Amino acid sequence: MTELEKATISDLNFSKLGGLVNVVVQDIETGEVLMFAHADREAIERTLREGLAYFYSRSRAKLWLKGETSGNYMKVVEILVDCDGDAVIYRVVPLGPVCHLGSRTCFTRVLSSETV
Amino acid sequence: MTELEKATISDLNFSKLGGLVNVVVQDIETGEVLMFAHADREAIERTLREGLAYFYSRSRAKLWLKGETSGNYMKVVEILVDCDGDAVIYRVVPLGPVCHLGSRTCFTRVLSSETV
Repeated sequence: MTELEKATISDLNFSKLGGLVNVVVQDIETGEVLMFAHADREAIERTLREGLAYFYSRSRAKLWLKGETSGNYMKVVEILVDCDGDAVIYRVVPLGPVCHLGSRTCFTRVLSSETV
Repeated sequence: MTELEKATISDLNFSKLGGLVNVVVQDIETGEVLMFAHADREAIERTLREGLAYFYSRSRAKLWLKGETSGNYMKVVEILVDCDGDAVIYRVVPLGPVCHLGSRTCFTRVLSSETV
Protein backbone atom coordinates (compact mmCIF):
# COMPACT_ATOMS: atom_id res chain seq x y z
CA MET A 1 0.00 0.00 0.00
CA THR A 2 1.42 3.36 -0.99
CA GLU A 3 1.11 6.30 1.39
CA LEU A 4 -2.40 7.68 1.47
CA GLU A 5 -3.32 11.29 0.90
CA LYS A 6 -5.65 12.96 3.38
CA ALA A 7 -9.25 13.89 2.79
CA THR A 8 -11.74 15.67 5.00
CA ILE A 9 -15.49 15.36 5.16
CA SER A 10 -15.79 18.38 2.86
CA ASP A 11 -14.24 16.22 0.12
CA LEU A 12 -17.22 13.88 0.24
CA ASN A 13 -19.92 14.34 -2.38
CA PHE A 14 -23.31 13.65 -0.81
CA SER A 15 -25.24 15.17 -3.70
CA LYS A 16 -25.28 12.24 -6.14
CA LEU A 17 -27.43 10.06 -3.95
CA GLY A 18 -29.73 12.46 -2.14
CA GLY A 19 -27.48 13.17 0.81
CA LEU A 20 -25.75 9.80 0.97
CA VAL A 21 -22.44 8.26 0.03
CA ASN A 22 -21.82 4.60 -0.76
CA VAL A 23 -20.06 2.60 1.92
CA VAL A 24 -18.08 -0.59 1.32
CA VAL A 25 -17.19 -2.39 4.54
CA GLN A 26 -13.95 -4.32 4.48
CA ASP A 27 -12.28 -6.45 7.13
CA ILE A 28 -8.96 -4.67 7.69
CA GLU A 29 -7.20 -7.89 8.63
CA THR A 30 -8.40 -10.30 5.94
CA GLY A 31 -9.36 -7.86 3.16
CA GLU A 32 -12.73 -9.57 2.89
CA VAL A 33 -15.64 -7.35 1.81
CA LEU A 34 -18.27 -7.78 4.51
CA MET A 35 -21.25 -5.63 3.52
CA PHE A 36 -22.43 -2.65 1.52
CA ALA A 37 -24.55 0.23 2.83
CA HIS A 38 -24.96 4.00 2.73
CA ALA A 39 -24.02 6.86 5.03
CA ASP A 40 -25.14 10.44 5.39
CA ARG A 41 -22.97 13.21 6.81
CA GLU A 42 -24.04 12.50 10.37
CA ALA A 43 -23.19 8.80 10.03
CA ILE A 44 -19.73 9.65 8.73
CA GLU A 45 -19.15 12.19 11.49
CA ARG A 46 -20.22 9.82 14.25
CA THR A 47 -18.13 7.00 12.78
CA LEU A 48 -15.08 9.24 12.78
CA ARG A 49 -15.75 10.48 16.28
CA GLU A 50 -16.77 7.23 17.99
CA GLY A 51 -14.85 4.65 15.99
CA LEU A 52 -17.89 2.42 15.48
CA ALA A 53 -19.64 1.94 12.13
CA TYR A 54 -22.67 4.16 11.60
CA PHE A 55 -24.79 4.08 8.44
CA TYR A 56 -27.96 5.63 7.14
CA SER A 57 -30.69 3.04 6.73
CA ARG A 58 -32.56 3.83 3.53
CA SER A 59 -35.36 1.41 4.41
CA ARG A 60 -35.88 2.83 7.90
CA ALA A 61 -34.90 6.39 6.85
CA LYS A 62 -32.72 6.99 9.89
CA LEU A 63 -29.27 6.84 11.37
CA TRP A 64 -28.16 3.28 12.06
CA LEU A 65 -25.46 2.19 14.47
CA LYS A 66 -24.45 -1.25 13.21
CA GLY A 67 -24.82 -3.62 16.15
CA GLU A 68 -27.29 -1.50 18.11
CA THR A 69 -29.77 -4.38 18.16
CA SER A 70 -27.54 -7.41 17.48
CA GLY A 71 -24.57 -6.38 19.57
CA ASN A 72 -22.36 -7.06 16.54
CA TYR A 73 -20.67 -3.68 16.35
CA MET A 74 -17.86 -2.96 13.93
CA LYS A 75 -14.79 -1.07 15.05
CA VAL A 76 -13.74 1.30 12.25
CA VAL A 77 -9.97 1.67 12.03
CA GLU A 78 -9.86 3.94 8.98
CA ILE A 79 -12.08 5.32 6.25
CA LEU A 80 -10.81 5.51 2.68
CA VAL A 81 -12.30 7.90 0.12
CA ASP A 82 -12.48 7.39 -3.63
CA CYS A 83 -11.44 9.77 -6.38
CA ASP A 84 -14.80 11.47 -6.83
CA GLY A 85 -15.80 11.44 -3.17
CA ASP A 86 -19.06 9.51 -3.51
CA ALA A 87 -17.84 6.19 -2.11
CA VAL A 88 -15.89 5.28 1.00
CA ILE A 89 -14.47 2.13 2.54
CA TYR A 90 -14.92 1.50 6.24
CA ARG A 91 -11.87 -0.61 7.16
CA VAL A 92 -13.12 -2.49 10.18
CA VAL A 93 -12.59 -5.06 12.87
CA PRO A 94 -15.98 -6.80 13.11
CA LEU A 95 -17.00 -7.66 16.67
CA GLY A 96 -19.29 -10.49 15.54
CA PRO A 97 -21.00 -11.83 12.42
CA VAL A 98 -21.78 -8.96 10.06
CA CYS A 99 -24.78 -10.33 8.18
CA HIS A 100 -28.25 -10.34 9.70
CA LEU A 101 -28.39 -13.96 8.50
CA GLY A 102 -25.56 -14.81 10.87
CA SER A 103 -22.63 -15.16 8.49
CA ARG A 104 -19.29 -13.40 8.64
CA THR A 105 -20.02 -11.53 5.41
CA CYS A 106 -23.19 -10.62 3.53
CA PHE A 107 -21.56 -11.81 0.29
CA THR A 108 -22.04 -15.57 0.57
CA ARG A 109 -23.33 -16.38 -2.93
CA VAL A 110 -21.60 -16.60 -6.28
CA LEU A 111 -23.48 -15.51 -9.39
CA SER A 112 -23.90 -18.28 -11.88
CA SER A 113 -24.41 -17.70 -15.57
CA GLU A 114 -26.46 -20.87 -15.94
CA THR A 115 -29.70 -19.07 -16.66
CA VAL A 116 -28.28 -16.24 -18.78
CA MET B 1 -13.42 -18.97 2.61
CA THR B 2 -16.36 -21.27 3.12
CA GLU B 3 -18.07 -22.82 0.11
CA LEU B 4 -20.29 -20.34 -1.68
CA GLU B 5 -23.94 -20.89 -2.48
CA LYS B 6 -25.12 -20.20 -6.00
CA ALA B 7 -27.24 -17.28 -7.11
CA THR B 8 -28.67 -16.43 -10.49
CA ILE B 9 -29.45 -13.08 -12.02
CA SER B 10 -33.06 -13.47 -10.89
CA ASP B 11 -31.79 -13.22 -7.30
CA LEU B 12 -30.61 -9.66 -7.95
CA ASN B 13 -32.83 -6.81 -6.80
CA PHE B 14 -32.61 -3.99 -9.32
CA SER B 15 -35.63 -2.16 -7.91
CA LYS B 16 -34.05 -0.29 -5.02
CA LEU B 17 -31.92 1.93 -7.21
CA GLY B 18 -34.00 2.47 -10.33
CA GLY B 19 -32.81 -0.57 -12.26
CA LEU B 20 -29.30 -0.73 -10.84
CA VAL B 21 -27.34 -2.74 -8.32
CA ASN B 22 -24.27 -1.55 -6.42
CA VAL B 23 -20.95 -2.97 -7.59
CA VAL B 24 -17.83 -3.21 -5.46
CA VAL B 25 -14.74 -4.08 -7.49
CA GLN B 26 -12.11 -6.10 -5.66
CA ASP B 27 -8.72 -7.35 -6.83
CA ILE B 28 -9.06 -11.13 -6.50
CA GLU B 29 -5.35 -11.58 -5.80
CA THR B 30 -4.67 -8.83 -3.27
CA GLY B 31 -8.14 -8.29 -1.82
CA GLU B 32 -7.79 -4.55 -2.45
CA VAL B 33 -11.01 -2.68 -3.19
CA LEU B 34 -10.37 -0.89 -6.48
CA MET B 35 -13.51 1.06 -7.32
CA PHE B 36 -17.24 1.38 -6.79
CA ALA B 37 -19.87 1.70 -9.52
CA HIS B 38 -23.32 0.53 -10.57
CA ALA B 39 -24.64 -2.08 -12.99
CA ASP B 40 -27.96 -2.66 -14.68
CA ARG B 41 -29.18 -6.07 -15.82
CA GLU B 42 -27.49 -5.78 -19.20
CA ALA B 43 -24.15 -4.90 -17.60
CA ILE B 44 -24.37 -7.94 -15.33
CA GLU B 45 -25.34 -10.22 -18.21
CA ARG B 46 -22.51 -9.02 -20.45
CA THR B 47 -20.00 -9.28 -17.59
CA LEU B 48 -21.05 -12.88 -16.98
CA ARG B 49 -20.97 -13.73 -20.68
CA GLU B 50 -17.78 -11.93 -21.74
CA GLY B 51 -15.73 -12.02 -18.53
CA LEU B 52 -14.90 -8.31 -18.69
CA ALA B 53 -16.29 -5.72 -16.29
CA TYR B 54 -19.33 -3.85 -17.56
CA PHE B 55 -21.11 -1.15 -15.58
CA TYR B 56 -23.92 1.31 -16.06
CA SER B 57 -22.64 4.88 -16.10
CA ARG B 58 -25.12 7.02 -14.21
CA SER B 59 -23.50 10.24 -15.43
CA ARG B 60 -23.55 9.19 -19.08
CA ALA B 61 -26.75 7.14 -18.70
CA LYS B 62 -25.46 4.20 -20.69
CA LEU B 63 -23.72 0.85 -20.62
CA TRP B 64 -20.02 1.19 -19.88
CA LEU B 65 -17.33 -1.35 -20.67
CA LYS B 66 -14.52 -0.48 -18.27
CA GLY B 67 -11.43 0.04 -20.41
CA GLU B 68 -13.26 0.81 -23.64
CA THR B 69 -11.46 4.15 -23.90
CA SER B 70 -8.42 3.66 -21.63
CA GLY B 71 -7.61 0.08 -22.60
CA ASN B 72 -7.54 -0.77 -18.90
CA TYR B 73 -10.06 -3.60 -18.97
CA MET B 74 -10.78 -5.70 -15.92
CA LYS B 75 -11.09 -9.46 -16.19
CA VAL B 76 -13.93 -10.63 -13.94
CA VAL B 77 -13.23 -14.02 -12.38
CA GLU B 78 -16.35 -14.25 -10.22
CA ILE B 79 -19.28 -12.18 -9.04
CA LEU B 80 -20.44 -12.44 -5.43
CA VAL B 81 -23.96 -11.45 -4.38
CA ASP B 82 -25.03 -10.10 -1.00
CA CYS B 83 -27.86 -11.27 1.22
CA ASP B 84 -30.52 -8.93 -0.13
CA GLY B 85 -29.37 -8.99 -3.74
CA ASP B 86 -28.79 -5.27 -4.21
CA ALA B 87 -24.99 -5.33 -4.10
CA VAL B 88 -22.41 -7.48 -5.86
CA ILE B 89 -18.64 -7.81 -5.85
CA TYR B 90 -16.80 -8.12 -9.13
CA ARG B 91 -13.70 -10.13 -8.20
CA VAL B 92 -11.24 -9.06 -10.88
CA VAL B 93 -7.80 -9.16 -12.37
CA PRO B 94 -7.18 -5.54 -13.45
CA LEU B 95 -5.37 -5.23 -16.77
CA GLY B 96 -4.01 -1.77 -15.93
CA PRO B 97 -4.58 1.09 -13.49
CA VAL B 98 -8.22 1.21 -12.46
CA CYS B 99 -8.65 4.88 -11.60
CA HIS B 100 -9.08 7.51 -14.29
CA LEU B 101 -6.43 9.45 -12.35
CA GLY B 102 -3.92 6.70 -13.13
CA SER B 103 -3.66 4.93 -9.79
CA ARG B 104 -4.16 1.26 -9.08
CA THR B 105 -7.26 1.95 -7.00
CA CYS B 106 -9.74 4.82 -6.79
CA PHE B 107 -9.47 4.73 -2.98
CA THR B 108 -6.21 6.65 -2.45
CA ARG B 109 -7.27 9.00 0.35
CA VAL B 110 -7.85 8.47 4.05
CA LEU B 111 -10.56 10.46 5.78
CA SER B 112 -9.23 12.64 8.55
CA SER B 113 -11.31 13.81 11.47
CA GLU B 114 -9.30 17.02 11.80
CA THR B 115 -12.14 19.26 10.75
CA VAL B 116 -14.98 17.41 12.43
